[in-house]
Amino acid sequence: MNRPEELIKKIYEKQGEIKDVFFTACGGSLVDLYPGYYFVNAESETMHSHWLTAKELIVTPSKFLKKGALVILCSHGGNTNETVEAAKLAKERGAAIITMTHNPDSICAKDDMNPIVYSWEDDTDEKERPQGIVMRILNELLKLQEPGYKKYEAILDGLDKVDGIVLAAKKKVKNRTWVFAEKYFAESFLYIMGSGASYSQAYGFSICSLQEMQWMDCCYLHTGEYFHGPFECTDEDHLYILLMGTGAARVMDERALTFLQKYGKKYEVIDAEELGINAIDASVNEYFCPILFYAMSVAYRTGLQDKRRHPLDMRRYMGVVKY
Amino acid sequence: MNRPEELIKKIYEKQGEIKDVFFTACGGSLVDLYPGYYFVNAESETMHSHWLTAKELIVTPSKFLKKGALVILCSHGGNTNETVEAAKLAKERGAAIITMTHNPDSICAKDDMNPIVYSWEDDTDEKERPQGIVMRILNELLKLQEPGYKKYEAILDGLDKVDGIVLAAKKKVKNRTWVFAEKYFAESFLYIMGSGASYSQAYGFSICSLQEMQWMDCCYLHTGEYFHGPFECTDEDHLYILLMGTGAARVMDERALTFLQKYGKKYEVIDAEELGINAIDASVNEYFCPILFYAMSVAYRTGLQDKRRHPLDMRRYMGVVKY
Repeated sequence: MNRPEELIKKIYEKQGEIKDVFFTACGGSLVDLYPGYYFVNAESETMHSHWLTAKELIVTPSKFLKKGALVILCSHGGNTNETVEAAKLAKERGAAIITMTHNPDSICAKDDMNPIVYSWEDDTDEKERPQGIVMRILNELLKLQEPGYKKYEAILDGLDKVDGIVLAAKKKVKNRTWVFAEKYFAESFLYIMGSGASYSQAYGFSICSLQEMQWMDCCYLHTGEYFHGPFECTDEDHLYILLMGTGAARVMDERALTFLQKYGKKYEVIDAEELGINAIDASVNEYFCPILFYAMSVAYRTGLQDKRRHPLDMRRYMGVVKY
Repeated sequence: MNRPEELIKKIYEKQGEIKDVFFTACGGSLVDLYPGYYFVNAESETMHSHWLTAKELIVTPSKFLKKGALVILCSHGGNTNETVEAAKLAKERGAAIITMTHNPDSICAKDDMNPIVYSWEDDTDEKERPQGIVMRILNELLKLQEPGYKKYEAILDGLDKVDGIVLAAKKKVKNRTWVFAEKYFAESFLYIMGSGASYSQAYGFSICSLQEMQWMDCCYLHTGEYFHGPFECTDEDHLYILLMGTGAARVMDERALTFLQKYGKKYEVIDAEELGINAIDASVNEYFCPILFYAMSVAYRTGLQDKRRHPLDMRRYMGVVKY
């Protein structure tokens, strides 16, 4: 079984300098790759970062998808067509790949995919799940490749602490999720907002937790973009969920909060600071907010499931019909 | 007054090789920069491409924002705080900038912003508007910098033809926009989908034309991602607008259409092929679809405005209150 740290060292020794990192997958797995994309973009002085749905990589591959590139993929079930095809294309072009999957019997778990098979149990430590694994890979890679990289120890510390933070946060919000569901279960539509690394969780909360698992209509918004159009919909009748992250991007979330406080009435704030993310060093804790927010999206969707009597695992198309 | 072609030549002569192109702005202006981002990503073998809202560039600037980078900005009114600040930061870091604005008296039109002041009249040719100007800049840049670049003439030809295509399409859809508004003006929510370079227009149609200008709730979706979550909301009661582009990405839009035909009932297809985009060479016409789709979003929102009696220019926050 490949361990992330050893796998990236092996790739680096064989491949030499990594110049581009592509993060590609589909849906919820693509969401899990965004914090890594954001981290490389913010921290690296040697690597360019790309994040896109697997099919778009296939139909319009960057010319930097070649030797010198590392492609990180993820497919929970391990047989997602687009992800498997993207991995194949990446290899054909000479890029190195790492593929995460939960399914040890899948295509993505085959040896030539450089697989990392992860657990996905209720008690699986956050650093053994995709978002944690991606941070472990990138932290090692930056240490190997960039002598000036100074956040190695802080990231390791964050990886050790984040599971405890998530556990405590889950307990803390349980009652809130019930109250939220009680108040808003019949709402026909809502907006979910975030920024920075956590923009991914506004997207994932929307497309996975609500659109897919609750058949609830919603829209994801970037808090920075909110003020350049979407805020015109805001009034006391509209429902918002605001994910407040940390780091330099937080100013955008704070501005959205101030606006909602003044002009809105129905909004739920999920604040990573209030939920304990500051136990991790301030220089890196923004990269761990999405792990926390994912757990919060699970908590809130579970509250909604129970109140709405709409099972999270019910599907009408995915795995049910051909498309 | 700076002409795009001369300006980029001047910058290239002074700056030397461009290694990174950043496209940054806010809201509708950010939308206009996406096709350029997508074009560089798809076509260039020497330049990396970045697209992000101006505030996020400011709070988390890439380390590649330095000498060797070109930053293309746009602000219609010319004084958007975040855009002005992003330009300032880019210059401080040694990057070259080009700033598009409609307002000759604005900060963005000052000499040190390398401004291109564009017209925005009903009869302004598409190649004189931001999306056209971006393509003109990038086409010259690729010709200057990449000896292997083969699409120069095809892009020039597209720039000459696109205005006529848009004019004809506007006439063609006029009745359709009335019928659409008549049927759906009271709809509480809709999804707007696209992919490739035209994903930007699904985003812009949503956040500008509907959320901002009609206070209508909606959500933008990528047709590639649609099948990995969001499609579970689809049924005969949900309304969709599907933008069908051209080029390699079209397969994703076609797949979404097939699905909507089978499981949906209320969907409006805006197909660039049917609207004449194929008059432009097939090797490049996908980059012109967003220009056409923008005009279509104007046509549809005007239909909605007239039926809903909600003036496109009515605002409750933007330019009205402090935030």
